Amino acid sequence: MSNSHLIDENAEVLPVYWENDRLYFLDQTLLPVDVVLEEQTTIEQVWVSIKQLKVRGAPIIGVAGAYGLYVGARGHANLPIEEFMVKLREMAVYLDSSRPTAVNLSWGLKRMISVAESSVLSGLNTVQVIGRLKEEAEAIHRQDRELCRAIGEAGSPLIEDGMGIQTHCNAGGLATSAFGTATAPMYLAHRQGVSFKVYVDETRPLLQGARLTSWELLRTGIDVTLICDNMAASLMASGRVDLIIVGTDRVAANGDVANKIGTYGLAILAKHFGIPFYVACPSSTVDLSTETGDTIPIEERNPEEVRSFGIRRTGPEDVNVWNPAFDVTPAEYVTGIITEQGILTAPYSENLRNLIQGT
Amino acid sequence: MSNSHLIDENAEVLPVYWENDRLYFLDQTLLPVDVVLEEQTTIEQVWVSIKQLKVRGAPIIGVAGAYGLYVGARGHANLPIEEFMVKLREMAVYLDSSRPTAVNLSWGLKRMISVAESSVLSGLNTVQVIGRLKEEAEAIHRQDRELCRAIGEAGSPLIEDGMGIQTHCNAGGLATSAFGTATAPMYLAHRQGVSFKVYVDETRPLLQGARLTSWELLRTGIDVTLICDNMAASLMASGRVDLIIVGTDRVAANGDVANKIGTYGLAILAKHFGIPFYVACPSSTVDLSTETGDTIPIEERNPEEVRSFGIRRTGPEDVNVWNPAFDVTPAEYVTGIITEQGILTAPYSENLRNLIQGT
Repeated sequence: MSNSHLIDENAEVLPVYWENDRLYFLDQTLLPVDVVLEEQTTIEQVWVSIKQLKVRGAPIIGVAGAYGLYVGARGHANLPIEEFMVKLREMAVYLDSSRPTAVNLSWGLKRMISVAESSVLSGLNTVQVIGRLKEEAEAIHRQDRELCRAIGEAGSPLIEDGMGIQTHCNAGGLATSAFGTATAPMYLAHRQGVSFKVYVDETRPLLQGARLTSWELLRTGIDVTLICDNMAASLMASGRVDLIIVGTDRVAANGDVANKIGTYGLAILAKHFGIPFYVACPSSTVDLSTETGDTIPIEERNPEEVRSFGIRRTGPEDVNVWNPAFDVTPAEYVTGIITEQGILTAPYSENLRNLIQGT
Repeated sequence: MSNSHLIDENAEVLPVYWENDRLYFLDQTLLPVDVVLEEQTTIEQVWVSIKQLKVRGAPIIGVAGAYGLYVGARGHANLPIEEFMVKLREMAVYLDSSRPTAVNLSWGLKRMISVAESSVLSGLNTVQVIGRLKEEAEAIHRQDRELCRAIGEAGSPLIEDGMGIQTHCNAGGLATSAFGTATAPMYLAHRQGVSFKVYVDETRPLLQGARLTSWELLRTGIDVTLICDNMAASLMASGRVDLIIVGTDRVAANGDVANKIGTYGLAILAKHFGIPFYVACPSSTVDLSTETGDTIPIEERNPEEVRSFGIRRTGPEDVNVWNPAFDVTPAEYVTGIITEQGILTAPYSENLRNLIQGT
């Protein structure tokens, strides 16, 4: 296929490639079996790729959405600037509808719209505005890489020799432009020669922990042990877990944290067993306009994700299913929030406001 | 195949069939896709069937083990009685090695050996002892059915109109001779016209909840909703769960409860959300010789169960795995134990001793 290709086993793997004005996503639904890059040539294809989780993870879908909007925009270079802006806003609303929970997608799209608006005000024409959109998507991409590294630097001092660290879902390099968020402290500590074990929850129903996190950590030589989600209590009771770090799709103004389904249960267990529970994210994940976690929309996904696995049926085809993709962990369970600006602790309402208003 | 056959979709389905001196197990590894009865003609086949979980569930493997020992014994009718007894004890040790955690298997086997020993003392010959073993296996089977019904009668008053009930793994009719243990109160309440919903944890890694419990409850018209294990905290937080009933593989003298991995976490969450957490089992599951849960051996199973699902790889083939099949829930999390003699509550050490010594 001209539009997709397998990647060499030893190549560095990043979820979004941008090269010679062409956009590629690593198809994460095929991992860990196949490592395939798929070129994204239309905005509709980008929408489907985000919806189907070919590209997934809060930070990187902000990047993916920005490039996606540019890919859509460059097809309308012949429109007068007013019509172009109407079209651009429509395309942003459309792309934003592909995943409702993560704030990064709308954050990235708003930033793109805002650049276009100020460019118009400066008198740029359609072709020039499209040029600015490309530069802005590239800047979002580059800044995400820098943010992840800074998150890693802020969080790596938490990791000590001999520790067991548990994580859930994939807030790894595959969810970002590099390093990941929850995994960034691990990658940096590993580079510094700290020796530790990582316990990865497989994360049903889509198994991002098994397929993605354990795969990417193993590639760098980190000591990884995969468990099923329901083994967490036993694992903690056995004394193997000293620290938990997860990612997040949205942090509310009061410090409530939306993340992959299962995070809330893990946080309750961590509190029960006295294990520190950290959340890692760039500050763009903090949404001060969301007062508490109660108002975060929780996406309910296709029941077939629970009734079957791949081609194999695991539950009766006529059984009801409840399949929320996310849950909200109340702020009281969060020991700290690791951002590119350092580690935040309670009181979150005050400290998150200072973080954002100082940005 | 002459030794296995598909069962009609509407037929009653029981995990162990005994007809005309022939033993059949329903191959539960094929559910919910295929419903196949497999004849068991040798003790080695029975060992493999128990090991591979073709027949599984604490109560029914007591029944399966007893029939399996008889199937082994009847091939040695030509041995002098002393040699026969040596062989019989060897076969019992062999069968007991197929699953280390459930006490019911050794309980059933001990009961068979004990009958053989008293028959020998009464002067019976090998053929007559084999006849007594057959009767004893049939009695164990019949009594298990009666026990399940009595557990259902003891537990069904807990279930009220409009309730949401959560269960884990399969302590259903497929785990017993009929009705199940955790499900027996549900089946009886349903027959009495009580209207309720059941939330079934899919129960990774082997998905007994998805494949077995949701399948068998649906067949009787109970309102079933399937969830992934990691959705429990959200489900409870949403107010949908009023009552939890699970089975158990062994109850220690102090009331600690061994059950399928994930039960302990569920119990901690239940306590956190103030939801009553009941365990249902026949009193034969209580093992006074096990002082506390700490001494219950926890079977660790094949890592491939976690690294893959069926034919599909879900984790890297070289990733470490921790795969304990069971966990132990401390007695303090157990609201009550539903047995055929009624519902027991704390103090468990005292009340379990009274239960067993009164039996």
